[in-house]
Amino acid sequence: MAIIVQKYGGSSVADSEKIRTVARRIVRTVQEGQKVVAVVSAQGKTTDALIEQARTISKDPPKREMDMLLATGEQISISLLAMAIDALGYPVISLTGAQGGIVTDTQYTKARIRAVDSARIKKELDKGCIVIVAGFQGITSSNDITTLGRGGSDTTAVAVAAALGAEVCEIYTDVEGVYTANPRMVPTARKISQVDYCEMLELASLGAIILQPRAVEVAAAHGVPIHVRSSFSQETGTIIKEVKSVERVISVTGVASDDNCVKITLTDVPNDVNVLSYVFSALAEEAINVDMIVQTGTAGRVTALTFTVAREDREAALRTVAKIKGDQQWQVLCDEEVAKVSIVGAGMMTNPGVAARMFSALNGKNIPVFVVSTSEIKVSCLVPRSAYQEAVRACHDEFSLGE
Amino acid sequence: MAIIVQKYGGSSVADSEKIRTVARRIVRTVQEGQKVVAVVSAQGKTTDALIEQARTISKDPPKREMDMLLATGEQISISLLAMAIDALGYPVISLTGAQGGIVTDTQYTKARIRAVDSARIKKELDKGCIVIVAGFQGITSSNDITTLGRGGSDTTAVAVAAALGAEVCEIYTDVEGVYTANPRMVPTARKISQVDYCEMLELASLGAIILQPRAVEVAAAHGVPIHVRSSFSQETGTIIKEVKSVERVISVTGVASDDNCVKITLTDVPNDVNVLSYVFSALAEEAINVDMIVQTGTAGRVTALTFTVAREDREAALRTVAKIKGDQQWQVLCDEEVAKVSIVGAGMMTNPGVAARMFSALNGKNIPVFVVSTSEIKVSCLVPRSAYQEAVRACHDEFSLGE
Repeated sequence: MAIIVQKYGGSSVADSEKIRTVARRIVRTVQEGQKVVAVVSAQGKTTDALIEQARTISKDPPKREMDMLLATGEQISISLLAMAIDALGYPVISLTGAQGGIVTDTQYTKARIRAVDSARIKKELDKGCIVIVAGFQGITSSNDITTLGRGGSDTTAVAVAAALGAEVCEIYTDVEGVYTANPRMVPTARKISQVDYCEMLELASLGAIILQPRAVEVAAAHGVPIHVRSSFSQETGTIIKEVKSVERVISVTGVASDDNCVKITLTDVPNDVNVLSYVFSALAEEAINVDMIVQTGTAGRVTALTFTVAREDREAALRTVAKIKGDQQWQVLCDEEVAKVSIVGAGMMTNPGVAARMFSALNGKNIPVFVVSTSEIKVSCLVPRSAYQEAVRACHDEFSLGE
Repeated sequence: MAIIVQKYGGSSVADSEKIRTVARRIVRTVQEGQKVVAVVSAQGKTTDALIEQARTISKDPPKREMDMLLATGEQISISLLAMAIDALGYPVISLTGAQGGIVTDTQYTKARIRAVDSARIKKELDKGCIVIVAGFQGITSSNDITTLGRGGSDTTAVAVAAALGAEVCEIYTDVEGVYTANPRMVPTARKISQVDYCEMLELASLGAIILQPRAVEVAAAHGVPIHVRSSFSQETGTIIKEVKSVERVISVTGVASDDNCVKITLTDVPNDVNVLSYVFSALAEEAINVDMIVQTGTAGRVTALTFTVAREDREAALRTVAKIKGDQQWQVLCDEEVAKVSIVGAGMMTNPGVAARMFSALNGKNIPVFVVSTSEIKVSCLVPRSAYQEAVRACHDEFSLGE
């Protein structure tokens, strides 16, 4: 019997009626002859409510205690879902991250999965149980509860699927799959039926937050196929797997956008490699992800350094930079009115005209570009936040993605 | 440095302001030079809200999943309390029952503590941390989460105090201590300054539910002094410890009452020792506590068997009895309109006049007595529920407990 891992997000288990719907869907998969492990997030707005409660106690609560608090969210949803499945007459057991063997590092609120000890899950599957595992959380080797940060449940699901050698990891969401651009911005956006891990990784990293980039990384590393699909329909969604290069067409697959970023610029910085190292090591120690990095080197003694971070890391990033800066004469500027627009596609770099077409499409709409960064399979432009939806549409049109 | 274990109930941590008050009290104890381990219940009505949520999913949820759900209640309160102490600038760590080493049997929703592995608590105390432990919950040897049933946090606190060799286990509550009778029923009731474990055990078992009987048992077994005191004042409350017999005066210490019981009567039962054994073994297997047991033996072939169980166990007890009964011709009667009134005092049985005075006091008020049970240090009478408050007052007056 094949094992299927299914991941249900917070909106899929938001209330008792929705939990019963998820229970029926899981049972249907079991009736089709599969073994099912379901990974579940906290109910709807539970996490936000818990964070709010913590704020009434402390402005800066210890991260370990935040994780202790937040982990209750999934513990509630897994037990309720198990009750709903039990009520349908199927054997079921819920497991916390700790019980499910999700071992992480000690980076509280942003922990990374180090290993999945799947012995308990396997034992329960062998007994014939449906297994419900808490997403988003894990346990350190010293038995402390951690959470994985935003979208961590996706990563849990893929990691569990990899550890079990599951046939597929199904990610249930409120959209039908991965689109060539956000359908709310681009009415002509198309559902992509199949996409390569690397392309999905770029799309995910670049703001198509339908799937956590870390989840895609783990899936790619272990060759776990991901099926992103709607929890409200039986339609096939988007399959993410390794696409053999012979099948590949050099083309733009989709347009991603992300307005959850801010631009930080340090000017009058000594032109010294150590500064780069100091700044980014310090940010890494605080577990702040730095995105687009540009150093506008000049021949002189000083230089400017620009990078973007997620909006929620703004304060922490500025505090870290201020600490490094000390009483040196740098200028620190922060611009919140930016957004990132990216085009993604396999083999893009072997086709240099692609980047040029993107720039000219933006130029045609008079949209300025502040920072550019490129990789094998994507080109990202930082543009004014006020113009980013227009920028997405311009790129989508330029590469005829709606056709 | 001495270790003090403090237990705070759900009403003490009901909201953020109360959590801050508890945090200040803990910090004050630390400032006085003590090491503190605080055992905390779920916030106010959290547990009831979670039970309500489960009911919307399933009428008869699996007990293991109920415990998975309910354990989140204390996990929330311990993390919030830890945040409040951290905000006061003191090192602190919260531990779930599992992390605190509270190992239980597998009797979900009514588990019993089998052992306390205090290694982690000691390690954190040695680091100089205030340790907050989740009450009411534990973990089985197969790593499944359990809860201890009603009032289980008291038991956790005493068990932790015993494991640590704590100087005292302070139980914070909303009353000033243990009284000679419920002050809401008997205006002349007095606070008892000191009481023996056995007397307290009887008082607790008999409805003075200020303290869980199991907690008193554990304290007695390990010689842990308990200090029951108010979380709203600095007053000394009631100390529960071993009282040397030379200090004892043969007298009634207090009157306890309990209207959380129902009477079940089996009539036309074969007069056969096996029946008693079958019935009570079956009830024990379902973890139903049976209280007053009376067999009205007759010379004939049949007999009647009466016992009381807690109100919430009514359904389960009747179901169990029905199973044992099968198609035999017993009658099963259940009377909910009963309550139990008890007098408690050391050495009472060496003074047989005490029971007689209780009966005549009840008789003086025309209160019928359905069942009597006695022990070394108590006499309990099952009376009509409608008259039990009057019965308490009659006993309190008879033994001049208000003076």
